[in-house]
Amino acid sequence: SVAVRVHRSRHVYLRAMTNVGDLGEFGLIERLRARLGGSRDERLVAGIGDDAAVWRSGAGYAIATTDTLVAGVHFLPGVAGWRDIGWKALAVNVSDIAAMGGSPSFALVTLHLPPDTPVAVVDEMYAGLYECADVYGVTIAGGDIVVSPVLAITIALMGDARIDEAGRPLLLRRDAAKAGDLIAVTGPLGGSAGGLRVLQAPPAAEQNDGEREMSRILAEQHMRPWPRVDAGDIAVSAGFRCGMDISDGLVQDLGHICRASGVDAELRIDDLPLEDGLMALFPEGARVLAATGGEDYELLLVGGEGALRIAEGALRKHLGMPGVQQLTIVGRITGAGAGLVRVIDAAGAEVALPSRGWDHLAPGGRL
Amino acid sequence: SVAVRVHRSRHVYLRAMTNVGDLGEFGLIERLRARLGGSRDERLVAGIGDDAAVWRSGAGYAIATTDTLVAGVHFLPGVAGWRDIGWKALAVNVSDIAAMGGSPSFALVTLHLPPDTPVAVVDEMYAGLYECADVYGVTIAGGDIVVSPVLAITIALMGDARIDEAGRPLLLRRDAAKAGDLIAVTGPLGGSAGGLRVLQAPPAAEQNDGEREMSRILAEQHMRPWPRVDAGDIAVSAGFRCGMDISDGLVQDLGHICRASGVDAELRIDDLPLEDGLMALFPEGARVLAATGGEDYELLLVGGEGALRIAEGALRKHLGMPGVQQLTIVGRITGAGAGLVRVIDAAGAEVALPSRGWDHLAPGGRL
Repeated sequence: SVAVRVHRSRHVYLRAMTNVGDLGEFGLIERLRARLGGSRDERLVAGIGDDAAVWRSGAGYAIATTDTLVAGVHFLPGVAGWRDIGWKALAVNVSDIAAMGGSPSFALVTLHLPPDTPVAVVDEMYAGLYECADVYGVTIAGGDIVVSPVLAITIALMGDARIDEAGRPLLLRRDAAKAGDLIAVTGPLGGSAGGLRVLQAPPAAEQNDGEREMSRILAEQHMRPWPRVDAGDIAVSAGFRCGMDISDGLVQDLGHICRASGVDAELRIDDLPLEDGLMALFPEGARVLAATGGEDYELLLVGGEGALRIAEGALRKHLGMPGVQQLTIVGRITGAGAGLVRVIDAAGAEVALPSRGWDHLAPGGRL
Repeated sequence: SVAVRVHRSRHVYLRAMTNVGDLGEFGLIERLRARLGGSRDERLVAGIGDDAAVWRSGAGYAIATTDTLVAGVHFLPGVAGWRDIGWKALAVNVSDIAAMGGSPSFALVTLHLPPDTPVAVVDEMYAGLYECADVYGVTIAGGDIVVSPVLAITIALMGDARIDEAGRPLLLRRDAAKAGDLIAVTGPLGGSAGGLRVLQAPPAAEQNDGEREMSRILAEQHMRPWPRVDAGDIAVSAGFRCGMDISDGLVQDLGHICRASGVDAELRIDDLPLEDGLMALFPEGARVLAATGGEDYELLLVGGEGALRIAEGALRKHLGMPGVQQLTIVGRITGAGAGLVRVIDAAGAEVALPSRGWDHLAPGGRL
């Protein structure tokens, strides 16, 4: 094992000793985005700042995204199984494609491996990865294997956008929310965050069989998320043009949409659909887990009443298929603004939340 | 800083304690390739085992590759400057696209950052990355920033293949060498390996100005490779259908082509074009550095006399442009075989080499 050292380079003049942890994930992304140099291809339709990049490719539109899981940061070896880690590494990328309303196609897989990694670990990760690839019709087209002191999986996933009759791409973007739009989610929330709690704290001895089964299902939701490619496709076909996947937590993710669109929103916390068992196992914290827990990988959709009705009708035909749920309206876009998300209860009173979601570079990970 | 631990998972039944270091990079890739599951999209033209993946995309063909630099493994912080590291992280990917005969288009950049990384380091890496993107017409379309105990850059790069009048892709593949083909390289070799030696051993005090300048240029070649997109495009247009970039070392890379094509080859070590200054600075080891040093990022082309003459004519028109060189014939495909590369001197006698090139998972990195 190798300890980490970040040396100062002879080429770097360190004006300020600000480090990336001080700036936070979103601060750093903003900084890099503001400094964008390099070529700017006129084929690019969506770039840094959305769930995935989109560019024109022949008569169609390509979608591309990349996501990484690092051992000890994004998963705890020994808690999550390697097969589940392989599944999740691909699933989080599939969710980014679903978040744009696209369908996934080809993946490149990079494994960062300490040389003493047992080959059986690699086999298990790949088995989980291929299970997910089978479900979502993804072909592993290539990749890379590198030595690293820390085990990690980086996947780049390509996909295709649906196009309309005029050949224009139908996309769910973050910057397309308008005053008066409704806010909907595609399924129950909080399951993954509840599952993480279950995994981190061993169950109390007095749990009954029902509680044990609920705990098991929540843990499964954390380890094996099922991205909503179906719902994303139905949403763009129904006319939704704004949306994303819920990965950092609903309140924070809605904030991303509001800031990108220049609007404020109101979120009704008592209307959030809760994952089965969440209220029973976490009666105190269930709604907060659903509002801020993150890693739900359901979609957050923003659009008009018309799109919502069409999407609901289409989803109804798919009910009964694994993971398919109806839409739930959980709030609305109140008007132009700086990106404020007001969380209210059933009585209309503002609710203070202990945290808004995840920042992966912030100390402790919490905003 | 966080020490590395690879835990055994509760899900893994460890039949054998073989680890990935025992198997080596190529053994592991072979194993994963043999176990390929998941969907297999009929649009896929080239996958695992070539420099990049290729698939049909509308009327054209998309090329995709991914490569990673890990601090302490692929570069030494404090030796290489961060700006150079940013350049190289993109350049090695550009070279994979050039190795297929394609042109690069869009990149996704993943930074793995310890939270205490100075923001100035990220700024410098991005500055170098954008310098390379400008030169090669690459647009940074998106990416990801993750916390990791170890600094690393993973880039996924997309590109386009040239197509013929019938709409078929013109590609340099590894499995297309035929008995009687000539083997050519697109420029001088050994510069990067010589530069690495210069960087690792401080120059002797008695060096004169000329030697110091030669050392500086070699070090620059190691830190700032210039991939040969121009030569790859000319090669496929001229009729070459077999080739790759020289990254692991010429002898080893030629071995990859021979094994993939089921042929044997003969390489004339005295005909290898040597980087300027290599013989002066390393009179003993210059030819071995050129044959096995690696990271040259010139192209290795295999084809008939006709393609060679056409490509030489086309390259002549570009001479004088940065990095453009003529082709040098360095060997030939002797016939069908198991992939044996025989290295001979000017007298036709077989030359024993101390190593054939790099294996990134092998102990010490050497095959």
